[in-house]
Amino acid sequence: MIILLDAMGGDNAPDANIKGAVQAINEVKSTTEVLLIGNRDVINQRVKELYGKDDISEISDRLKIHHTTETIEMEDTPTVAIKHKKDSSMVVGFNLLKEGKGDVFISAGNSGALLTGATLLVGRIKGIDRPALAGILPAYKSRLLLIDCGSNTNCKPINLLQFAQMSSIYLRNTFNIENPAIGLLNIGTEETKGNELTRESYQLLKDNAEKLNINFVGNVEGRDAFSGKIDAIVTDGFTGNIFLKAVEGIGKLVKRSLKESLKKNILSILGSIPCLPAINRFAKTMDYKSYGGALFLGVKKPVVKAHGSSDEELFRFTIKQAEQFVENRAVEKMIEEFEKTRETKLV
Amino acid sequence: MIILLDAMGGDNAPDANIKGAVQAINEVKSTTEVLLIGNRDVINQRVKELYGKDDISEISDRLKIHHTTETIEMEDTPTVAIKHKKDSSMVVGFNLLKEGKGDVFISAGNSGALLTGATLLVGRIKGIDRPALAGILPAYKSRLLLIDCGSNTNCKPINLLQFAQMSSIYLRNTFNIENPAIGLLNIGTEETKGNELTRESYQLLKDNAEKLNINFVGNVEGRDAFSGKIDAIVTDGFTGNIFLKAVEGIGKLVKRSLKESLKKNILSILGSIPCLPAINRFAKTMDYKSYGGALFLGVKKPVVKAHGSSDEELFRFTIKQAEQFVENRAVEKMIEEFEKTRETKLV
Repeated sequence: MIILLDAMGGDNAPDANIKGAVQAINEVKSTTEVLLIGNRDVINQRVKELYGKDDISEISDRLKIHHTTETIEMEDTPTVAIKHKKDSSMVVGFNLLKEGKGDVFISAGNSGALLTGATLLVGRIKGIDRPALAGILPAYKSRLLLIDCGSNTNCKPINLLQFAQMSSIYLRNTFNIENPAIGLLNIGTEETKGNELTRESYQLLKDNAEKLNINFVGNVEGRDAFSGKIDAIVTDGFTGNIFLKAVEGIGKLVKRSLKESLKKNILSILGSIPCLPAINRFAKTMDYKSYGGALFLGVKKPVVKAHGSSDEELFRFTIKQAEQFVENRAVEKMIEEFEKTRETKLV
Repeated sequence: MIILLDAMGGDNAPDANIKGAVQAINEVKSTTEVLLIGNRDVINQRVKELYGKDDISEISDRLKIHHTTETIEMEDTPTVAIKHKKDSSMVVGFNLLKEGKGDVFISAGNSGALLTGATLLVGRIKGIDRPALAGILPAYKSRLLLIDCGSNTNCKPINLLQFAQMSSIYLRNTFNIENPAIGLLNIGTEETKGNELTRESYQLLKDNAEKLNINFVGNVEGRDAFSGKIDAIVTDGFTGNIFLKAVEGIGKLVKRSLKESLKKNILSILGSIPCLPAINRFAKTMDYKSYGGALFLGVKKPVVKAHGSSDEELFRFTIKQAEQFVENRAVEKMIEEFEKTRETKLV
């Protein structure tokens, strides 16, 4: 297996990307290679400084570089960047993936460009109008899939129906959840609640869930979303991104407040020592980094969006997660299942 | 001062409402009365069971009942309920407020009906098109005002501009923040980010902030909202409610996970005892109940929306908060300031 890694994307590139790959290479299968896509000189200069080697292949012969000269920046307009920066690490990554020269592509770069590239260069699965970003959040003794996390700002009810179908297939095949519970993110549980999109999506989901093999559990409010009883919540990319970042913001506040509460006085500091393992266990549950990258569901090949602020630890984790994703044949299974329901008449 | 309390609204009514009032009456000023609005027989029967008294006035002569026969239920359609349930605790509460027979009205009942009632029965402040619910969330060593928390599902840019102006005035006068930092809740910080509403609102805010005395700090993402550097975030009621409930859901998860992490084994349980004060301090920071009710900003008289699942503790706190709200003359000051800027030409 070849994992394609955009070495130039993300807030901490290329150091975090390189270090994450170096760490991961000993933890993935011995037949798995990581191909770092980016400027060879820049990468090897960092390798020299970080590891004292002239070339990354001296660290492991399963670490390789594919040389590119351009980088898509966060400020770039997605479609323009994808069309014009032909030798950027992201565009080259997508092309390698498309040509079968790699099995999965990971990037922590510009999200908009990543979606545009995935759709334009790799292509959509037949039957899916809009691919979407599926992120994994913590939930009580479980996890919560959130789709769309931010790739499609404006959505129609049919998109949300497809998101529900994609997450069902994905959760069944990747997490072995037999009958995943899919909810519609809304501001109330009654079917009349919400805006035009949620009201129409509710009806479409309710009327078509059974024939599309979706276990639709109705409207779900954020306050109940993390109970562990819901496996996925579907929403448009604007609302999903607001939700995701609220969770992230509160996570940061929790970490900071807990730390400072414990440091408040010398007695608390001493007192906190015996319970540090428990608090660390708790912090790990709450840390989004434990949950890895988000997947672009709906494109023909596996594309993983690593967190923009990924550090080496998160790249390491995301690389291992991407390997798992390929092993599970999640994309192939999605193509097969959408093929089966393509002729289904919706009501 | 007379505080009007809807005794029949909320998930735990009337017990929590009664108990909260009984607790609060000894903590508010000796000239403050609480008037419980609801069915006299039901209230006194509960008073009998809870306190062994025949009438609530036997507990304190500053606790009184205003008898009503109807209750607005959570399932009721707001406008229909407000128009037809003339003898409901909520409609009667609004009428007493309007007639000056009380200084502030608190209800934990149906939010939609509360907004409809506040707007139709009490009336909007001149210059404000849509009153909105302003909630208070925790932030780092501070608090974050979120407006609109859920009263106006669909908003226009002009509404968001007015929300920004209202929160500025409110924060200046109630929390003594000289130049409150107001952000627009969005999915990115660049001005081109977001949906049509956020992009247009950004421009309107940017162009008119100075003349309306708003310290507009631009787009704010949820991940940065709780840093303590932002005093208020403005958004439409749908997005605001999604945000609010995400925070609430994560808060519940945090509490549950932390508790269970500490109980994981006997060593952690023993270990956690010395740091319990610190953990309790932390839990208090994170608990939305410490932040009380949300205010309907933009109506001519003070209206407080207590949390639907308020318990006695939260009612107690909300009653004290409402007293403070009246003392601060927050509504009168808002009327005065909007009067001053009414002739301002927007660009």
